[in-house]
Amino acid sequence: MAVAAAAKKFRAPRIAIAGATGAVGHDLLRILTERGFPVGSLKLLASARSAGKTLDFRGETLTIEELTEDSFKDVDIALFSAGGAQSKRFAPAAVDAGALVIDNSSAFRMTDGVPLVVPEVNPDAAFEHKGIIANPNCSTILMNVAVWPIHTKVSPVSRCVVSTYQAASGAGAAAMAELEQQARDWVDGKEKVTQDIFGRQYIWNLFSHNAPVDLETGYNEEETKMVVETKKIFNDPDFRTAVTCVRVPVLRAHCEAVNLAFDEDVPDLEAKARAAFADAPGVRIVDDREANAFPEPLLASNQDDILVGRIRKDPSVRSGSALEFFLAGDQVRKGAATNAVQIAELFLER
Amino acid sequence: MAVAAAAKKFRAPRIAIAGATGAVGHDLLRILTERGFPVGSLKLLASARSAGKTLDFRGETLTIEELTEDSFKDVDIALFSAGGAQSKRFAPAAVDAGALVIDNSSAFRMTDGVPLVVPEVNPDAAFEHKGIIANPNCSTILMNVAVWPIHTKVSPVSRCVVSTYQAASGAGAAAMAELEQQARDWVDGKEKVTQDIFGRQYIWNLFSHNAPVDLETGYNEEETKMVVETKKIFNDPDFRTAVTCVRVPVLRAHCEAVNLAFDEDVPDLEAKARAAFADAPGVRIVDDREANAFPEPLLASNQDDILVGRIRKDPSVRSGSALEFFLAGDQVRKGAATNAVQIAELFLER
Repeated sequence: MAVAAAAKKFRAPRIAIAGATGAVGHDLLRILTERGFPVGSLKLLASARSAGKTLDFRGETLTIEELTEDSFKDVDIALFSAGGAQSKRFAPAAVDAGALVIDNSSAFRMTDGVPLVVPEVNPDAAFEHKGIIANPNCSTILMNVAVWPIHTKVSPVSRCVVSTYQAASGAGAAAMAELEQQARDWVDGKEKVTQDIFGRQYIWNLFSHNAPVDLETGYNEEETKMVVETKKIFNDPDFRTAVTCVRVPVLRAHCEAVNLAFDEDVPDLEAKARAAFADAPGVRIVDDREANAFPEPLLASNQDDILVGRIRKDPSVRSGSALEFFLAGDQVRKGAATNAVQIAELFLER
Repeated sequence: MAVAAAAKKFRAPRIAIAGATGAVGHDLLRILTERGFPVGSLKLLASARSAGKTLDFRGETLTIEELTEDSFKDVDIALFSAGGAQSKRFAPAAVDAGALVIDNSSAFRMTDGVPLVVPEVNPDAAFEHKGIIANPNCSTILMNVAVWPIHTKVSPVSRCVVSTYQAASGAGAAAMAELEQQARDWVDGKEKVTQDIFGRQYIWNLFSHNAPVDLETGYNEEETKMVVETKKIFNDPDFRTAVTCVRVPVLRAHCEAVNLAFDEDVPDLEAKARAAFADAPGVRIVDDREANAFPEPLLASNQDDILVGRIRKDPSVRSGSALEFFLAGDQVRKGAATNAVQIAELFLER
């Protein structure tokens, strides 16, 4: 069955969305519409709590059903975005029912036999699936879309050092709402702002990413995802990344300061990097030194392109060369929903 | 005169503050009080606009005078924090009048014969002044206080890669007020928030540092300051820094993600770094992996210590070794006012 499923392409696939009420679920509906995805039928699935509620899709009112093991009869593609626990529990049932699962959680990303796909980087990997394809971590996707053209068209990257500036959206819709509530609390002069989710004041503050930290290495899970997922997506177990993940009080787009080192001294490095970015799918250059106009979260919000700017040669290397740039990308869209829909598009008959 | 001035120490110096009404001026008054600095007399200077206003200092009400070339008679130490143009215009007059100038602006930082001093790093340099001592850029100070103990006690740093997360305060009190106003505007549902200073929405956003960008290199002036000032402070023209400076919607403390590479493979790197930080003046370790508790702007605000955490070995290097950490420091205090007062303290008779 696995091989047959891998080969299968659809004219108008019957879609299910598991986790339809979350931030990513919401955007999946929008993006299917925006991109004119040929949805044969659409089933919205969520927890029992949300079952019975309705959502509009292309002018039709759809009733949300409870996500169960029996949800996937007559489904061709199941887009999962209900968290890792739900994916682990229900994705196998979806595969057994014959659906192709595109999973936005981290549950299966590093599992052997599960392709981890950024369509701008490794679209062919998608076709080696055994029923499940994993959507990478949001920060990984944004970085990979921008680093891949440099790594393949300019010079092989020997080492990548990244610092992230991550939005609240990565922690879900309720986290975004808490950050907004903190603004209202602060304006109201409340002594202590609402902090049920992050356990700290987030407005006027920033903090190391809230993922658990490995007690031995000091790396948090978000950082480790970026390191190991990039190796898998680039199909290069020796690709080297050092990363610091930080949450900043921004609502829905992530930024990353990226430093790429090369073993060779690349002549005209900056010009070559600009040319590679200009040609790269999913990348838009925003880089006006005179106007001090560069990528910003608000410019990237509700966009699918990754914005790159501050493209410049790093003056600090002793040998070889290095490139610096700054990117911004919508974490909910390209970092999650858009990437998942792009993977689904790979399986459309054209 | 220069040599005599350099040697001179004071029991209770007569102080002038040029720029008494700014964010740093305000903190200079607080810090002189908090540290029990033996102020012989205090003269508050500002623009004509502020002359005649009053400020309290140790229970006394002082009237602000207009900053002119004649302001510095009977002044031993003049603390300048009125911007580069005012420093260029009035610091020479202060020196001619016999005052030792400690200048918080960038006007003289890279001038030959003007020491650039971080007391935890190069206190002795202060005594080589010719009337003016420069206070480094805020981001430089925070980085230098933390990097110096590693560079000198652990292993010589071959390359330093930094990404900053800078607060509004670096752009002055009015910039902080605009950011706060934007929160009120957003809560009020205004379509466009107040953006007279930064020319963009800052709340829920971040942007490349607003300093002018060199059209050739792509480095902005804030980044270049960190690169060149560090060489001067460390007295090492070959110290190599690559840096990306970013403004985040935080009010008054800066953060920096720092990556230090070493030529040698340092055994027990993390433990050695922790020991060096623990011994370093002006540094406090905040690094609880289990509780996910690390440096944050709000924890560093109104503190003089630089908080360091996320101390860990960088897994990405091919040869040698590298250390990563994250710091937070109050930009107005240690990044400006406290550092200036600490320089003044070097000139106290004990």
